[in-house]
Amino acid sequence: MITIEQLITQIEQRQPIVNKAEIGAEQLRQEFSSVGSLTTADHEQLSFLADPHYIASLADTQAGAVLVTAEYRDQVPASAVALVVTSPYLAYAGASQLFARDSLSNGIHPSAVIADSAVIGDHVNIGPFCVIGDNVQIGARSSLDAHVVVEANTKIGPDCVIKSQVVIGHDSVIGSHVRLHAGVSVGSEGFGFAPTRDPSVTGWERIAQLGRVVIGDHVRIGSQTCIDRGAIDDTVIGNHVIIDNLVQVAHNVRIGDGTAIAAQTGIAGSTSIGKRCIIGGAVGITGHIEITDDVILSGMTMVTKSIKKSGSYSSGTAAMPTANWRRAAVRFRQLGRE
Amino acid sequence: MITIEQLITQIEQRQPIVNKAEIGAEQLRQEFSSVGSLTTADHEQLSFLADPHYIASLADTQAGAVLVTAEYRDQVPASAVALVVTSPYLAYAGASQLFARDSLSNGIHPSAVIADSAVIGDHVNIGPFCVIGDNVQIGARSSLDAHVVVEANTKIGPDCVIKSQVVIGHDSVIGSHVRLHAGVSVGSEGFGFAPTRDPSVTGWERIAQLGRVVIGDHVRIGSQTCIDRGAIDDTVIGNHVIIDNLVQVAHNVRIGDGTAIAAQTGIAGSTSIGKRCIIGGAVGITGHIEITDDVILSGMTMVTKSIKKSGSYSSGTAAMPTANWRRAAVRFRQLGRE
Amino acid sequence: MITIEQLITQIEQRQPIVNKAEIGAEQLRQEFSSVGSLTTADHEQLSFLADPHYIASLADTQAGAVLVTAEYRDQVPASAVALVVTSPYLAYAGASQLFARDSLSNGIHPSAVIADSAVIGDHVNIGPFCVIGDNVQIGARSSLDAHVVVEANTKIGPDCVIKSQVVIGHDSVIGSHVRLHAGVSVGSEGFGFAPTRDPSVTGWERIAQLGRVVIGDHVRIGSQTCIDRGAIDDTVIGNHVIIDNLVQVAHNVRIGDGTAIAAQTGIAGSTSIGKRCIIGGAVGITGHIEITDDVILSGMTMVTKSIKKSGSYSSGTAAMPTANWRRAAVRFRQLGRE
Repeated sequence: MITIEQLITQIEQRQPIVNKAEIGAEQLRQEFSSVGSLTTADHEQLSFLADPHYIASLADTQAGAVLVTAEYRDQVPASAVALVVTSPYLAYAGASQLFARDSLSNGIHPSAVIADSAVIGDHVNIGPFCVIGDNVQIGARSSLDAHVVVEANTKIGPDCVIKSQVVIGHDSVIGSHVRLHAGVSVGSEGFGFAPTRDPSVTGWERIAQLGRVVIGDHVRIGSQTCIDRGAIDDTVIGNHVIIDNLVQVAHNVRIGDGTAIAAQTGIAGSTSIGKRCIIGGAVGITGHIEITDDVILSGMTMVTKSIKKSGSYSSGTAAMPTANWRRAAVRFRQLGRE
Repeated sequence: MITIEQLITQIEQRQPIVNKAEIGAEQLRQEFSSVGSLTTADHEQLSFLADPHYIASLADTQAGAVLVTAEYRDQVPASAVALVVTSPYLAYAGASQLFARDSLSNGIHPSAVIADSAVIGDHVNIGPFCVIGDNVQIGARSSLDAHVVVEANTKIGPDCVIKSQVVIGHDSVIGSHVRLHAGVSVGSEGFGFAPTRDPSVTGWERIAQLGRVVIGDHVRIGSQTCIDRGAIDDTVIGNHVIIDNLVQVAHNVRIGDGTAIAAQTGIAGSTSIGKRCIIGGAVGITGHIEITDDVILSGMTMVTKSIKKSGSYSSGTAAMPTANWRRAAVRFRQLGRE
Repeated sequence: MITIEQLITQIEQRQPIVNKAEIGAEQLRQEFSSVGSLTTADHEQLSFLADPHYIASLADTQAGAVLVTAEYRDQVPASAVALVVTSPYLAYAGASQLFARDSLSNGIHPSAVIADSAVIGDHVNIGPFCVIGDNVQIGARSSLDAHVVVEANTKIGPDCVIKSQVVIGHDSVIGSHVRLHAGVSVGSEGFGFAPTRDPSVTGWERIAQLGRVVIGDHVRIGSQTCIDRGAIDDTVIGNHVIIDNLVQVAHNVRIGDGTAIAAQTGIAGSTSIGKRCIIGGAVGITGHIEITDDVILSGMTMVTKSIKKSGSYSSGTAAMPTANWRRAAVRFRQLGRE
């Protein structure tokens, strides 16, 4: 159970609780087991009103406490503690972390294979069957679940959470407070080949990828996402970048601070993405281009040229009944005639 | 080798073999090593005529037995046993399972790390280097290949097949007869963040994902597919849902019974998909919408709004010579001018 | 450090160094630590001029040697060894391999679980926690990193590099000099189901996938890519095929020699791709079609029909400001009206 004091401390890392002084002694005894929506929360749960659309649910909520803006404070029922903040959604985000489950690992599991030359910080957890290569450094309080592979010379900062079956290639640099979810691949060899120019072979000569992956602080990378190592220079992910599942980040891509990328987006080699961009799901971005800061790309957008002006961009056509679509597609094709 | 009696028993779980009584004693001695197409099968293989397009191959088939509808029975050569059913394709599907290879695992491998509090059913296989967390339950006859991670408090039903390197997050619920292929991620943390509203940080506050993944019975999930856990409520996959490889199912998605989803499709958060839908490959479905029952989406369709009426939907434009495409794309762009 | 003799030997496997006889004794003492671009390389690095756009950087380069065509030979500064070749890019590719890091593994790690019946060639490396099934054959000098699973009866040729957490299903055949990157899935069960035709169940009958995956020589497959096994016949990847990350290759696909496939492309079941095709990222190719040799598909192209003529094909529409896009999309929709 989380006490209301713990809750308040956590939320106030980001924003003040405006009415803190007014919370009564009785209310300060409230404890919480988890978070719930206004309609489903019980008296041991914290809830929040982030979107005024849900105001009708506030009066009847059974929640033990509700995060609200000052505007809605008076509508919180007497059975709940009102916690008044500027951004209830941000406060809910912070509070939710108090209820998250611990990692699988606890200490260094005896089955882990750790090179003698690896430097493991204090209070690091390393789960079963992890493999830690030569000269790897892992910062204090970082936690690796099961079957994590960290190849030689990689440096992982403090306070990272690395879930099961992540593979991190050699010589990678990973900052602090980074979260890598199950199955992430960091530092695999980029897709670089030169044609052999020998028509009898129809083959390709591999270009060994000698660059690294460098990841900043407070970065989050989702399951099965691939961040390939650079060819000569590095692939670079800035601070506070958040990336969803099944995303492809090719060699020598650079992503600016604070950018968010939804699932299944692909970014081809040597492209540079600015700061604070918001990139929808299944977006495709070609190689060797530049996207400036504060660009929003809606889901499934195809980006074939640099974007030099901040703003929102889209492409594609949305679902319609298949019979209509066939006609539209035929007419689109006709647009291509000379 | 599979005897014809085994074959008949298997097929009749779904549909009667119409001419069973007429199969002669000699024919009942036939045994089978596998399944083959009409043109390639030998006398130890079972074949089938599911599509009348292939009728020309029937007369010359070397197969030991052929599944056919009553209509084509007389065209089965004398060298083969004719097995008459309503749906030869469905019968072939059932029969094929008799020839599938066993799992990698056999019993509990001594290298597996299994929490003392885990409850393992009868005749469960757990392969090398699996990691089974606290209070996990695994139902009878379920089989885990190598390197499977099951986090704490997860419940897996009976008769499941879980291939190598699947990761199942804590508190997940998985029904019976579920098949998870190599590298599946179930119950990773969903992609939930609140902006910090601090422009100097350009950062994001993580929303801990406190919901579960709940998967029904007879579900199939393909390699590298991700099913993220819910934020507050659960992500729910109904019974008889079949999902291909590299699919993204975001937090709080709900998928109705019997729906099929082809590879590389992505479904964004909190979207609800109906029953018996058939969703093609690389479809993108936005978040917070509802798709009703019996909807068909062709490959690469972009769905940006709820679909309230059953039927077939499509979007996009198909490949054309690049020179023509450039002209069509320019003209499409002109359609966007005011 | 790599000597210039080693460099010359490596490059001349593909093409002669035209001015080899003219390299002086002093220059032959040059040694190299790695590769760099013209602007960043230091005296211990090899550089190259592959694209005349960068000619301005040649005069000032600090590189120890530069690969150039005869045309630019005189512009190489005196401080660098000029190495004259027909294709500097191809020469750089070959040279880069001399600087690549060794694999994680070295010998057979004692934690690996290897079936007694497996046949392991000379100088094979098998990393920690690998699982090698019955009757597996692994050719000489092949190297498996950590957590690789090879199911029964699979045959891997000589000189392969298999990175961590690759899963290779039973009965697969893999040629020589094949590189499989972290998390690849080869030989998972294809997505084959027959409808049960029982409306009360809304279910699917699984079709066991009895075919194999057969992969040629000199093939490269990127992280998280899935190559499913065939239903009855095999899935076949030709020689010299290179495939990027997160690609889906469904059951019974056939890919011709020398074809290159970029990330996140999906190829549906039973489709056949010709030789020397170049397929961009996130391309979607429907099932049961045929694409001839020497076809180029630009990124995100949707292929719904066979392509019988070599050449370049494209589809889709590119990013535009969202307000304009909304108008264009509405007008596209109107094209579908009767």
